Amino acid sequence: MAHVTITRPTTYRAAVIGTGFMGRVHSHAIAAAGGTVAGIAGSTPERARRAAPALRAEAVFDDIGALIDAADVVHVCVPNHLHAPIALAAIAAGKHVVCEKPLATDLDTARAMTEAAAAAGVVATVPFVYRFHPMVREARARVAAGRIGRLTLAHGSYLQDWLLRPDDDNWRVDADKGGALRAFGDIGSHWCDLLEFVTGDRITAVSAQLATANRRRGGRDVSTEDIVTLQFATAGGMIGSTVVSQVSAGRKNRLLLEVSGTEATLAFDQERPETLWIGGREVNGVLMRDPDHLSPDAARLARVPGGHAQGYQDCFNAFVADTGAAIAGDAPDGLPVFADGLRAARIAEAVAASARARDWAEVPA
Amino acid sequence: MAHVTITRPTTYRAAVIGTGFMGRVHSHAIAAAGGTVAGIAGSTPERARRAAPALRAEAVFDDIGALIDAADVVHVCVPNHLHAPIALAAIAAGKHVVCEKPLATDLDTARAMTEAAAAAGVVATVPFVYRFHPMVREARARVAAGRIGRLTLAHGSYLQDWLLRPDDDNWRVDADKGGALRAFGDIGSHWCDLLEFVTGDRITAVSAQLATANRRRGGRDVSTEDIVTLQFATAGGMIGSTVVSQVSAGRKNRLLLEVSGTEATLAFDQERPETLWIGGREVNGVLMRDPDHLSPDAARLARVPGGHAQGYQDCFNAFVADTGAAIAGDAPDGLPVFADGLRAARIAEAVAASARARDWAEVPA
Amino acid sequence: MAHVTITRPTTYRAAVIGTGFMGRVHSHAIAAAGGTVAGIAGSTPERARRAAPALRAEAVFDDIGALIDAADVVHVCVPNHLHAPIALAAIAAGKHVVCEKPLATDLDTARAMTEAAAAAGVVATVPFVYRFHPMVREARARVAAGRIGRLTLAHGSYLQDWLLRPDDDNWRVDADKGGALRAFGDIGSHWCDLLEFVTGDRITAVSAQLATANRRRGGRDVSTEDIVTLQFATAGGMIGSTVVSQVSAGRKNRLLLEVSGTEATLAFDQERPETLWIGGREVNGVLMRDPDHLSPDAARLARVPGGHAQGYQDCFNAFVADTGAAIAGDAPDGLPVFADGLRAARIAEAVAASARARDWAEVPA
Amino acid sequence: MAHVTITRPTTYRAAVIGTGFMGRVHSHAIAAAGGTVAGIAGSTPERARRAAPALRAEAVFDDIGALIDAADVVHVCVPNHLHAPIALAAIAAGKHVVCEKPLATDLDTARAMTEAAAAAGVVATVPFVYRFHPMVREARARVAAGRIGRLTLAHGSYLQDWLLRPDDDNWRVDADKGGALRAFGDIGSHWCDLLEFVTGDRITAVSAQLATANRRRGGRDVSTEDIVTLQFATAGGMIGSTVVSQVSAGRKNRLLLEVSGTEATLAFDQERPETLWIGGREVNGVLMRDPDHLSPDAARLARVPGGHAQGYQDCFNAFVADTGAAIAGDAPDGLPVFADGLRAARIAEAVAASARARDWAEVPA
Repeated sequence: MAHVTITRPTTYRAAVIGTGFMGRVHSHAIAAAGGTVAGIAGSTPERARRAAPALRAEAVFDDIGALIDAADVVHVCVPNHLHAPIALAAIAAGKHVVCEKPLATDLDTARAMTEAAAAAGVVATVPFVYRFHPMVREARARVAAGRIGRLTLAHGSYLQDWLLRPDDDNWRVDADKGGALRAFGDIGSHWCDLLEFVTGDRITAVSAQLATANRRRGGRDVSTEDIVTLQFATAGGMIGSTVVSQVSAGRKNRLLLEVSGTEATLAFDQERPETLWIGGREVNGVLMRDPDHLSPDAARLARVPGGHAQGYQDCFNAFVADTGAAIAGDAPDGLPVFADGLRAARIAEAVAASARARDWAEVPA
Repeated sequence: MAHVTITRPTTYRAAVIGTGFMGRVHSHAIAAAGGTVAGIAGSTPERARRAAPALRAEAVFDDIGALIDAADVVHVCVPNHLHAPIALAAIAAGKHVVCEKPLATDLDTARAMTEAAAAAGVVATVPFVYRFHPMVREARARVAAGRIGRLTLAHGSYLQDWLLRPDDDNWRVDADKGGALRAFGDIGSHWCDLLEFVTGDRITAVSAQLATANRRRGGRDVSTEDIVTLQFATAGGMIGSTVVSQVSAGRKNRLLLEVSGTEATLAFDQERPETLWIGGREVNGVLMRDPDHLSPDAARLARVPGGHAQGYQDCFNAFVADTGAAIAGDAPDGLPVFADGLRAARIAEAVAASARARDWAEVPA
Repeated sequence: MAHVTITRPTTYRAAVIGTGFMGRVHSHAIAAAGGTVAGIAGSTPERARRAAPALRAEAVFDDIGALIDAADVVHVCVPNHLHAPIALAAIAAGKHVVCEKPLATDLDTARAMTEAAAAAGVVATVPFVYRFHPMVREARARVAAGRIGRLTLAHGSYLQDWLLRPDDDNWRVDADKGGALRAFGDIGSHWCDLLEFVTGDRITAVSAQLATANRRRGGRDVSTEDIVTLQFATAGGMIGSTVVSQVSAGRKNRLLLEVSGTEATLAFDQERPETLWIGGREVNGVLMRDPDHLSPDAARLARVPGGHAQGYQDCFNAFVADTGAAIAGDAPDGLPVFADGLRAARIAEAVAASARARDWAEVPA
Repeated sequence: MAHVTITRPTTYRAAVIGTGFMGRVHSHAIAAAGGTVAGIAGSTPERARRAAPALRAEAVFDDIGALIDAADVVHVCVPNHLHAPIALAAIAAGKHVVCEKPLATDLDTARAMTEAAAAAGVVATVPFVYRFHPMVREARARVAAGRIGRLTLAHGSYLQDWLLRPDDDNWRVDADKGGALRAFGDIGSHWCDLLEFVTGDRITAVSAQLATANRRRGGRDVSTEDIVTLQFATAGGMIGSTVVSQVSAGRKNRLLLEVSGTEATLAFDQERPETLWIGGREVNGVLMRDPDHLSPDAARLARVPGGHAQGYQDCFNAFVADTGAAIAGDAPDGLPVFADGLRAARIAEAVAASARARDWAEVPA
């Protein structure tokens, strides 16, 4: 017999709603995970039609309800203020949901979405995708194994420059569409998620400042912040701080997280995601992503040998693959779900409250 | 009307022959390019069957002729000594071919394969995939535009450590399967291809040394080299050198290329592929892969914003996509074809001759 | 005539009080500046005698008053709580003074010392020596020239690990000898000085947290902090933050200062003091300390060509040379004087008050 | 008794001949070592007089013989073709000599100088000062202790850009004053010295190419090379290569040396001299110059704590201090003497012969 045909049941028929950059990233990840993009919808039918080839869409829908019906999993990649209605509709239809962060533009809505997903028993995930860098997993495994000792200090930054100039503009700048906290909601939430993910610890109180470097963009006043500075304390006894900015010239996507304990320090830089810096009193280590020398959860996410760089799309692919595994009944370690999105909303609310009151604000567990 | 179905004709039905690491990388790239893996074959039917899910194969073949017949494009991912018979069979069947490098274990065979592909009029490409790092394209564009001035010096290295220990072993170690030149054939050829690709210049003479650090592996004598040092001169008047090693502890895939001209220096490091170093007398520049600030051919290959790392698989995806475009009748810039594989074989032969004679050896144009 | 004898009047006859590491650094700088160490005194006469050769001392004194009388300039290199009595005695004797930081262990004493020096009309300097890295001067010149634009954000850290372990000990750990704030007084003050020096701006309010990682050292309780996190706002409209730690494994003397404006970002790392990072939207620059391409004040402090590293002792030498120039009647730009030491004490008091009250604290101008 | 006067016999009364940049560096090092600059001479008496303050000279001589008579140690800091007559005169007068490299512009003269110094029994040293970076000593100690394993490969580069432009000029460009080999004699010799110093191995054969990027400078033809590429083999069984250039834009003084053995790799970068990179299969190390964690000979040369940078002048100071120790009868480890300068001349002659003949050339032991 010359050949055997392989039948692979497609378990991941996705709807992708939103056809911008994030829609393309989601679609590519769906294909990489062996799924299909059963249909897409965009802000206009024409846009969706033009985007269809790049998104490998099997169909273009102009009715979102029909699109939800046609899919098993709904990927919500639209501006923030539209996350809730679409995600809630998908959940109501019994579909699994992947919803971009921030889940919603206010805490109550994020809570409602999380509760709805839980009640419906669907898989509902949020792409805190930096969790899927193998070296982030390695950092987490080393903390968990006690190799860093008792944690004492965490600090870092998340810096970008794409909104540096007064004529740089985006829907995220508008509080109505993106939410009242922009830089923090968009990228600061990633930093806090990574901190809590790597350390297994929880922020309990924050003290923050907000600043808007460009008070006008696109001919209108801007109320959302360009810069956040943030101090915090944790349940486990760490103190720390971070800086978030979208107006730091020369920094493209500089997420730095440094965690110090009584035995060692770990530092991860998202612009160089293939290495983990391990500070020691006698010698510092630079661990490269060589699957032969990583902890199991990090090695699991290493797809190519050390020195052959993995990147952002690889993280996204792994996130969608793990979402698929959860739908199939597995419980992949570290999958970010709506509860994590809700957690981010809680921290964001405390940051806003602290800055407003110029005082420390508690973060509920 | 609720939706429009999109019909995408599959123009890229691929056979993947060889189910190891490279087979997986090729398969992922085929899927990312919108193609399908119509069938696979491996060293044994059992291995192929086990690999089928990871390779998204639609069928597993135990007859390679039948597999070739079932595909439009044949990806040859087997040990080096098997490249020629399979690629020639595919060409004879009128199929397009993607053949791993080195094309063959000797120059004459590489020439025969190149001539056969040309005679058959098929697209025949070789994955010199580092050409698909956007920053490599940026370097090439800057040289071509004269921004580096008249080129005077090129140097660098390609260093790995996966064969450091006497008990590290692989089919590439055997001259019968991998060819007489191992380190140079496997990775040195990449360096030379990148040099000529970035500079548009040609090596005309080489002087080389070979060394075998571990003379026994796996209980048998080893004749292939672990280390190469290489000097060269070019048609355009540069001199230069490189070092190739598979036994350099701590270097995973360290391909460094530095090119100096009368105006500036460019340096590219494959372990940090997202930046290009631009040396200047007054200030040095570090250009990040931000598509908004790249030359057109580099921007074309940038899939995600600056600071969101692209990696090895992204290069491979772009290579296969461009192979697909060539099959569709386009002429994508910089696509590495069998003539480039033949070029690598010519340089390799001169390297071997130089080392043997302990003298300079000419490289035919 | 075969030769001409050169008569150089020694204008810098120094007393060095304190014979530890800082005493050696001061003595070397005095010699490098062409001065002489007329005499030294230590915690015991025996110690001073043993240290004399390394400090090039012309004499060893056991009476500090006599030593002050024998010198033109008195270098105070003793534990912090002894700074004031010695410096005030030197000032009372009409001598110039170089006093280690922090000037005193409380604000009132620092103010009294500053006023005494002003009243006496002597030169009184404080070794905020990082001001003497040429690339710090370059950063300052670029800010002053408007090349960074309107400043919006400053952040960074000052991290060490020499007090990581519970058995690491030093007089600085005792509040009685070193002052109530230890990490901030010892190194945080450097960071704040550098911030204000480079930007020409002033911190107006701070919000801080303190933590003591090791609550016992050397068999006694520790009240001084190992870690500080600090947020601030400035008169010029910047916000910012910094992290100070003496228990960050792997960080030896990591003073990082990053300043962002509407046009560019500057970053200086004291562990790599020969370069200045210049962030830009299109390309980042790495400026090396090549005197041919620096602003005048930076070029003035460049003693060797680019690529031939300058270091900590070179900074100290330049600081003492500028102190000597001030004594000779010049007004060298950027010389840190007692008013700067007083400024540091004001900020330290606000940091302590903020941490105590868990609230923002104003910093008087 | 209030004080004890310390009498330090001045054992190091130096003559400094040559008042350019190197003369200043030597003079500073003499002072740092506790010596005195008894007298100086320059290319003209006026120049010497102007330079006297910067060189802390006690006298200016216009007769070199008289200057030699007035000193115990003669520092020869003049253009290369003048090294031999002055050094030989000093040796004939029974004086110790510190002579800049290259010792002479031809091998025979270098040999005669070395023999003369040996016959006279004077201390005669050559400032291969990069040997005095503590991390170079650390590398050497680790090789000697077998921590790198059996050495297999050495490579690197020494790159500068100060002669990049056709209008950059210097006496070194003239073969009559600087010698026939310029880039190799000036900086390549440092690289080879460091290689042999760190590894304890010897180059036995070389194959080199020379290139002159700018064939005219200052209105005259240039015969000396701007660029060298060099392959070599060693007595111990290593192969290797290096690149030397004075026209590599953006590289100021980039001396890189990487040595690989069967256990580990070491890399030293003179532009970042405070760290040593230690490549390993599992994790790479970055060792900082923290005296508490260095081998004895490295710790001996560490003058300030880790993180407080040491630099070029610190190396020079240590070199002169060790020269002084040798004069005093000690035998400091690693002091570069005329035999090392002669060794450099032998390698240079082989490099020139190889390039001329386009063939390998042996290097006599």
